[in-house]
Amino acid sequence: MKNNNRKFTQIYQKQKIKIDIILEKSLQGRKPASLYEPGSYILHSEGKRLRPLLVLLSAQAVGGQFKNVYNAAAAVEMLHNFTLVHDDIMDNADKRRGRLTLHKKYDSNTAILVGDSLLSVAYEYLLKDCNGNAKEVLSAFTKGLVDVCEGQSMDTDFELKESVSIKEYIFMITKKTAAMAEMCCKIGATIGGGNRTKINALSKYGKNLGIAFQIHDDLLDISADEKEFGKTIGGDLVEGKKTYLFIKALENARGKDRKYLSKVIENKGIRKNQVKNYKLLYEKLGVLNSAKKEIKEYTNQALDSLKVFNIEQRKIFYWLADALIKRTR
Amino acid sequence: MKNNNRKFTQIYQKQKIKIDIILEKSLQGRKPASLYEPGSYILHSEGKRLRPLLVLLSAQAVGGQFKNVYNAAAAVEMLHNFTLVHDDIMDNADKRRGRLTLHKKYDSNTAILVGDSLLSVAYEYLLKDCNGNAKEVLSAFTKGLVDVCEGQSMDTDFELKESVSIKEYIFMITKKTAAMAEMCCKIGATIGGGNRTKINALSKYGKNLGIAFQIHDDLLDISADEKEFGKTIGGDLVEGKKTYLFIKALENARGKDRKYLSKVIENKGIRKNQVKNYKLLYEKLGVLNSAKKEIKEYTNQALDSLKVFNIEQRKIFYWLADALIKRTR
Repeated sequence: MKNNNRKFTQIYQKQKIKIDIILEKSLQGRKPASLYEPGSYILHSEGKRLRPLLVLLSAQAVGGQFKNVYNAAAAVEMLHNFTLVHDDIMDNADKRRGRLTLHKKYDSNTAILVGDSLLSVAYEYLLKDCNGNAKEVLSAFTKGLVDVCEGQSMDTDFELKESVSIKEYIFMITKKTAAMAEMCCKIGATIGGGNRTKINALSKYGKNLGIAFQIHDDLLDISADEKEFGKTIGGDLVEGKKTYLFIKALENARGKDRKYLSKVIENKGIRKNQVKNYKLLYEKLGVLNSAKKEIKEYTNQALDSLKVFNIEQRKIFYWLADALIKRTR
Repeated sequence: MKNNNRKFTQIYQKQKIKIDIILEKSLQGRKPASLYEPGSYILHSEGKRLRPLLVLLSAQAVGGQFKNVYNAAAAVEMLHNFTLVHDDIMDNADKRRGRLTLHKKYDSNTAILVGDSLLSVAYEYLLKDCNGNAKEVLSAFTKGLVDVCEGQSMDTDFELKESVSIKEYIFMITKKTAAMAEMCCKIGATIGGGNRTKINALSKYGKNLGIAFQIHDDLLDISADEKEFGKTIGGDLVEGKKTYLFIKALENARGKDRKYLSKVIENKGIRKNQVKNYKLLYEKLGVLNSAKKEIKEYTNQALDSLKVFNIEQRKIFYWLADALIKRTR
């Protein structure tokens, strides 16, 4: 088991470097520089490259080879970066991965256009790895793009909504986060030459893993170690975001507690020095444990869908799911 | 000839209505409304639908049928509207086609996301009309998208550049405007089942027509009848844009005239009441005639490329080129 983990970690690290190199080269020498230099700036920033990894592993699982999906793997990372660039403008965010966001380093107009351009190059790269399967692969990619726009719009709607249910929240993150992981697996498995059953199994894995990933993100925001996390704890509460934890807390709370939680909505966020109190309330209401349980359930659903693969093929997907649950940042 | 013109105008009007209906239905009932209602707002605004027309006519020219490219025709119009929405944010434009621009009616964040979403639905619609040719069709569409982003970035660069040559200007509008007309013809001809020679001929028609169209646009800005034009005459000069006319004028001018033109750059535009003087200077320097000559040349190049088609097939493309040259708004 431990040997396997080391092996898988090495595979990940090695492939991450390969993806980084493709991304670095992807915009080199292209003109105008006013468009592609800012594009390179965002593509070169430190990312986990988890989405490309899903493409690679899914292709491999169905008997395909990494070398046939590198461009597609780079494409999903470009698509992801396109969403980050535009989301950061909308959120008026200053920092991303420890560096200035694109619209802060340049300006909003540049960031809008560079985001568009990243998306255009993403399609260009995806097409490089397509042949007879182009319609299927491009449809999966396009569905991912449609979903991520819808998810982002729903997330924005939540800011103004008085109450959001857990069901609505799960629907939103399925579109905003999980659809892209699902798409990565589907693209990898399709280009890799998988049959319908295996493509569907991997897509389901990606989707459920994506939901678990997002709830874990919400959990980390309040329960991570600040040093390891690299960001201030409780940022979601400060911004008044309707996360899994907050919605669940509001569902469980009565009386005084409920009133205290409602203040987050009324005031569109809290002060940093209030985070501690809200964390204690979350603990009292048991929502951290609810989140952990939910993460485990979605992860189990992800793993369950892989039964059509033999145990050897499944191992690296188990490792990945485990690593995501245990991540501290 | 006159009978033909009436017939072609009727075909255009009939097909325009069909495209309008597809566009109107395309976002109906989709959720969230926060995303698709603003999307509908822009798709329902009055447009000439020239790009969809190029798709339809190109398909027909190679023996294809209109009904097999309606979704593709709607897709190129959605792509066009995506560029308008994002360009209007960047230009801080208030009005478009006589109505409030999307970011003025809603807000910039909505407009960024709705633009992205229009692009996603454009790909979705294009894929509906693709089968074995998906890679080719999607590659043409994606190249159009890449080019339009590059062209927009170059156009922005021009604002800060001291001097721009006619060659650089033509290169920019080839990317920003003509690449999309080229793309429309290529997509129509490819889905229509044309061979390589005919696809290339139509693509070349689209590209050169697009260049002529843009120079004509620059010309209309100063020489149109204000009532018919529906906009203030000389808007490009007021905004200090480096159009064909301005670049050519600067090329031709010496001494005092040159100094007077340089003021447009120095002051980043002129006052409305100065437009008359600049128009007189343009006339003195012969740049309106140069533009007319250039428009004719590119139009002729467009028509020349159609020699692989018989005279009957060519007629409607001649009519379209003629109508575009004669348009007054």
